[in-house]
Formats: sequence, structure tokens, C-alpha cells
Amino acid sequence: MKLKFKNLSDDLQKVRDTAPLVHNITNYVVMNNTANALLSIGASPVMAHAAEEVAEMVTLASALVINIGTLSKEWISGMAIAMAAAHEKGIPIIFDPVGAGATEFRTRTCLSLLERAAPAVIRGNASEVMALAGDCVQTKGVDSSAAASDAESAALALAKKYDCVVCVSGAIDLITDGRQTMRVRNGHALMPKVTGLGCTATALIGAFCAVNKDILVATSHAMMVMGICGELAAAQATGPGSFQVHLIDAFYNLNAEQVEAHWLDPEAK
Amino acid sequence: MKLKFKNLSDDLQKVRDTAPLVHNITNYVVMNNTANALLSIGASPVMAHAAEEVAEMVTLASALVINIGTLSKEWISGMAIAMAAAHEKGIPIIFDPVGAGATEFRTRTCLSLLERAAPAVIRGNASEVMALAGDCVQTKGVDSSAAASDAESAALALAKKYDCVVCVSGAIDLITDGRQTMRVRNGHALMPKVTGLGCTATALIGAFCAVNKDILVATSHAMMVMGICGELAAAQATGPGSFQVHLIDAFYNLNAEQVEAHWLDPEAK
Amino acid sequence: MKLKFKNLSDDLQKVRDTAPLVHNITNYVVMNNTANALLSIGASPVMAHAAEEVAEMVTLASALVINIGTLSKEWISGMAIAMAAAHEKGIPIIFDPVGAGATEFRTRTCLSLLERAAPAVIRGNASEVMALAGDCVQTKGVDSSAAASDAESAALALAKKYDCVVCVSGAIDLITDGRQTMRVRNGHALMPKVTGLGCTATALIGAFCAVNKDILVATSHAMMVMGICGELAAAQATGPGSFQVHLIDAFYNLNAEQVEAHWLDPEAK
Repeated sequence: MKLKFKNLSDDLQKVRDTAPLVHNITNYVVMNNTANALLSIGASPVMAHAAEEVAEMVTLASALVINIGTLSKEWISGMAIAMAAAHEKGIPIIFDPVGAGATEFRTRTCLSLLERAAPAVIRGNASEVMALAGDCVQTKGVDSSAAASDAESAALALAKKYDCVVCVSGAIDLITDGRQTMRVRNGHALMPKVTGLGCTATALIGAFCAVNKDILVATSHAMMVMGICGELAAAQATGPGSFQVHLIDAFYNLNAEQVEAHWLDPEAK
Repeated sequence: MKLKFKNLSDDLQKVRDTAPLVHNITNYVVMNNTANALLSIGASPVMAHAAEEVAEMVTLASALVINIGTLSKEWISGMAIAMAAAHEKGIPIIFDPVGAGATEFRTRTCLSLLERAAPAVIRGNASEVMALAGDCVQTKGVDSSAAASDAESAALALAKKYDCVVCVSGAIDLITDGRQTMRVRNGHALMPKVTGLGCTATALIGAFCAVNKDILVATSHAMMVMGICGELAAAQATGPGSFQVHLIDAFYNLNAEQVEAHWLDPEAK
Repeated sequence: MKLKFKNLSDDLQKVRDTAPLVHNITNYVVMNNTANALLSIGASPVMAHAAEEVAEMVTLASALVINIGTLSKEWISGMAIAMAAAHEKGIPIIFDPVGAGATEFRTRTCLSLLERAAPAVIRGNASEVMALAGDCVQTKGVDSSAAASDAESAALALAKKYDCVVCVSGAIDLITDGRQTMRVRNGHALMPKVTGLGCTATALIGAFCAVNKDILVATSHAMMVMGICGELAAAQATGPGSFQVHLIDAFYNLNAEQVEAHWLDPEAK
């Protein structure tokens, strides 16, 4: 498979034309940034976690983003109900196992949620993906202690187990459906210095999966948008604070010319 | 009634001189922005939601802002207790029914809270106001699927039902007490591209109601401040990320000259 | 005792070289800013509050930050468990009693938590520190109604009671272990106009206590970094919105030359 910048630009235009509703059950740290990233790229975010309403809310949505970054018992039932409702309606679920491997509670909760409803995409860092695959690895809080390439076999195993796309983000993002594997090389060294950009990536994958049923391609497009906008933001930034501001602006202003100019062919094998 | 920019500037000065405490029970997405908007305009924000303390906290405050944006069962009792305490003490309640109409849980919770203690102001988008008035409308997550003008009869009905001011924000904001209706035309197209600026407006209404007992005027002043500062921010911004930053700066720096220069007479009828 | 800018720069370098994990149980308003401040200074933040995982998470960490800014019953047990685990492992606890004195619930919760596990550092504003020491003072929401110097005897009393360092932030920060008292004069008038910079200070104290076992010195270094970066940010800012952005950039870019150029000898007695 070969990605083409024309297709990415077309998907971006579809997001802007249709403003798909992306339902997020995510962590406290990133809610504001996630919502702003989705709005800026052209999607329509909603944050709702109560067990009483998530099934109703998710049926309005075109994608469901589940992110366990500030997990607590009270939120798990809302996540489980939303995932079941999304699964039943065929709404793609994007799952972000923040901090899996750091504590038994996180790893166990992820595995339990994934049993209930298979996601379209799992996006995590290398440590998180390895933890879900059962590899012995210690996540340092929510930061990875391994490179994305270290998690390749774990990613392949997870992709096969859940019949989903697995995206391991890192300096080079690895995206696989268990058969084909893409490597996205766009991005910038400032990105891990801003909290929650992995969570932003997960949310953008939701927006792109809402407009493109080829989940491997949609995920790759979202990760390229992250990387390209990261490069655009870094060119303006003087540190992680201004980077975050410019990144949101970059999502909003991203056009086909910028996509073409920053295009680095994702290696595929 | 005719608004005058001199009166708006006087109210702004009162906010800065007295730094009224505005007690917020609001959603996770906007807490940081809301607090910063209140601080920048000159008020003093506090966020507290626990049933154990809200009655005590609200008696220190000059306004209570209730916003159901990330509603859960656990928060409803805190909201109800705070509203009852505010009502008893004569502290104005500003109510933001985020996402009413999107789910039955939100609509029902709003109506139940409003039954317990009438607010001074309800501020929502057109879909939310129509949902509260019992109109058949589907809110798309938390974004309106209708223009403010579509909600005029719903706003009038709500204003009469709760004997309060209703503010429907949109490209043209509609503000009514059921007898007089103001239309505020200030603002900028980037504003709906930043998450939670409606919530920011609700919080600013709290600050202005804290210093002006004429709730229709105070609400109109707050919405004009939002609109004028939005115009000032847009003149500096290159997208929604930088817009949010400049908006906070604009609140902080807003002066009488800027108010006069950006004044668009609100139509009243 | 005399602080030296060389030692501060060395501690800063140690933070960057070792990226200590700082475990935060903090409030919703500041989570994003706190995480970004820690990342920018070179530390590695994690936010986790669930009773099910905090004991496991804190054992991975080099410091524990407890901040009661948006307190609720459900969070108290997580705080208590984390503090007990940190205490047992000798991990320094930095305690931020946000809004103590504003409500009985906050004051009582703080005192109860402090009974269970003595912190390395308590950092609050003057009202909060006075409230914990049992002085009759009314905190206005979360803002101080007193100057740091008013809280000196309260700070000394608390430092002796819990055998810890107490940091009272204000225009001049007062830092005492009950024997020696430092006064940090760096900072800028815009800082109280940005929400949660006290919370940011608390988190940075965590990062510096993670690399320097002399808690009085580590706390003073963190407060000087806050003050110096505040001055650097203010030189670029046009209001509180841009100040916050530049502050994060300043943390990231801070170097020995800037520390030396902005150095104001903390008075010690």
C-alpha cells in the first residue's frame, strides 16, 4: 500500500465538510487540548462520560475515543457502556491505553475493556503497547521506556488478537493491521515535551476514521497530520508553550500545499 | 432600553475594583480557561463542587456559575445544594445547560435543577435553549444545530417560566427577560472554533451580575465584552490556538477606548 | 545559609538529566499546566488519583505532589493511600492546601491528611498557611487575603509541627524549615493573574526535591525558578494569556546565564 498526499488532503476536506461528531471519554489533563485539536481540524468534539448518557451520546457520533489517562473506577462503567453501544452500531472505537504497564490497575482495565468490544484502533506508546501484549516492560508513569520499533512484534500480536489497527507513536510512528505496516516519519522533537500530544493523535485518528472506512489509511493520515502540523508548529515555536498554540493554529490552517511540501513517504512493507 | 458604552466601562471598572468572587461548578474541559477569563477580566474565580463544601463556599461568593458540560451523577447533588444556598442568600445563579437536548440525562437534569432554584440567567446555544423549552430539536453533541434567532420564542418562554434572563449565544446573541430583547452583534467567526467560549461567556456574565443588579444589562455587558474582546483577539490571531491566548490578554487589557471603538449598538425591541 | 546560582543551575541540570517522575494528585483546573510545567523543566509528570493504583504508581516516582484544589470525597482516599505509600518509601511529599480556610471541609481534610503522613514541604498562600496553623483568617475562595509576611509565625509553627519546610508564596516568597527562613524576591505582578501558578510552583518543588535532598534549598531553588521564569515571561507577554505561554517556554529554555542575570540574593536569616 502506498499513501498519497492527495488522498490525505481529500480526507482532511471531508472532515471539514462534514464536521463529524467525535465522542471522547478521555482524561482530565488533555480534555481542553483534545477538544481544541478536533475543532481546529474541522471535527466536532463532545466529552461525556456518565454511564447514564454515554450510550445515547455515542449513537450521535461518528467515532468514539476512549482514553484511560486519569482512570478511576467510576469512569470504567461509562467506558464499557459506550464501547458496547459503539460496537453494536458499527461506530469505530479508538482506544488509548495511557499508562498501561505502569500499574496493574491500568493494564487490567484495558484488557477488560478490550475484551468487551474490539476497537478499530489502539494507539499508544511503545511501553503501553508492549504491556497490552503481555510483554514484560515497565512504563515510566505515562512516558514510554522503549522506542516504537521495540514494540513491533507486540503491535503485530495485538493487531491480530483484536483484528484492529495498532499505532505505536514515537519518533517514527508504526501503524499496522497485522498484515501491512506503515512507518510515519513526520514529527518534531518538541512533541514529547508537550503533555498529551499522544492523546491528541488518538482524537485525530477518531476524526479521520469518521470519514474513511479504511482504518489503516485513516490512522496513517491522522498520524501524518500530527507530524506535519508538528513540523509547522515547531518552525514558529520558541518552546513547548508556544508549540502547543502554533499546533492548534496549524491544524486549523493546514492545506494541501503544506501537506505536499512536508510529505515524507511512509515506508510500507 | 438602550445600552451605553460608558455604563459598560463603569461595570468593567467595578469588576476590577471589587474582584468579586465567582463560584463555578463547571466542566472539566473549560475549568482552566474559565478561571483565566475571570482573573483576566478582574474577578476572582473559585472552582468547588463537593456536596460537603459548596453551601459554605457559595456564601462567600458574589455569583454562582453552574455548567453541566461534563455531567455526572456525583456532581448533581453539589450543584443542587449550591443553587439552593445561592437562592436563599440572593446570590445570582448563572446556568449553562451544555448539551441539553443531546441526551435525555442532560435535559432532565437541567429541568430538575432549574425547578429547585430559579437562576438569574440561563445562557446556552440555540439548540440547548430550545431543548429546555421543550422544543423538538437535536443538539449535535454540544454544538448548536440552529441559529440564535430560531430560539427566540423558546427564549421568551423560558424567561417567563423562570422569571429570568435568557441569553442565546450565536453569531448574533439574543438576550431577553421576556419583555425586552437585546441583540448583541459583536464577535468573530473564530469564536466557535475555540472550545468552551460559550462557557467563558457564562462565567463573565457571573462577574458582571456580581456588580450590576440589572441582570438584563449585566448580561448584555458581559456578552459585549466577549464580542469586543473576540474582535480584538481575532485581529492578532492566526488560528484558534493563538486566538485563545489573545482573548485572555484582551480581557486583561480592555479599556474604555476599545469599548467605544468597537461599540455596535445592540438592537433592542 | 546562602543560596548560590551555581547550585541552582546544577539542580536544574540534574532535573533535565534524570527526568524524575513526579506523581501528581492535583486539581482539574491546573492538571494540564502542571504537566506542561514539569515536562518543560525536564521532569516527567504523571497524574493518577485512583485508590486502586496510587500506591503502585507512587513507588515509581521520585516525588509526590498532593493538591486539594478541586477536592471531593472520592479523591481523599487516593490522596491518603498515596501519601502513606510515599512516606513508607521515603519519597518526598509536597502538599498544596488550596483553599484551606475557605471552607471547613478543606481545612479539615488538610489537617487529616497531614496527620497521616508528614510532608517534606507545604506550599500555600498566606491565608492557607494561616488556616492550617489555626489562625483565624478567611480565605477568599482560593486567593489569599493576606501577604506572605503576615503568615510568618504561622509558617514557623507549621514547620515545627510537621518537621517540614513551609513555603508561603506571595510577592516575596517566605520559605522556612522552622530554623532558617529564606525570602525569594523574584517574580512578577502578572503571576497572580494566571490561574494555578501556585500549583505550578508546588509541582516544581516536587521536581527539585527529587534531585536535592536538602529540602529547604530545593524548595528555594524551585521558587527562584518560578520567579526568574516569571520575569522572563513577563518581558515577552502582553497579558496573562501570553504570559502563561511564555512561562512554559521559559522553563524549557532556562539556562545558567539567565539564572545569573536575574539572581536576587534571597535574604536569609
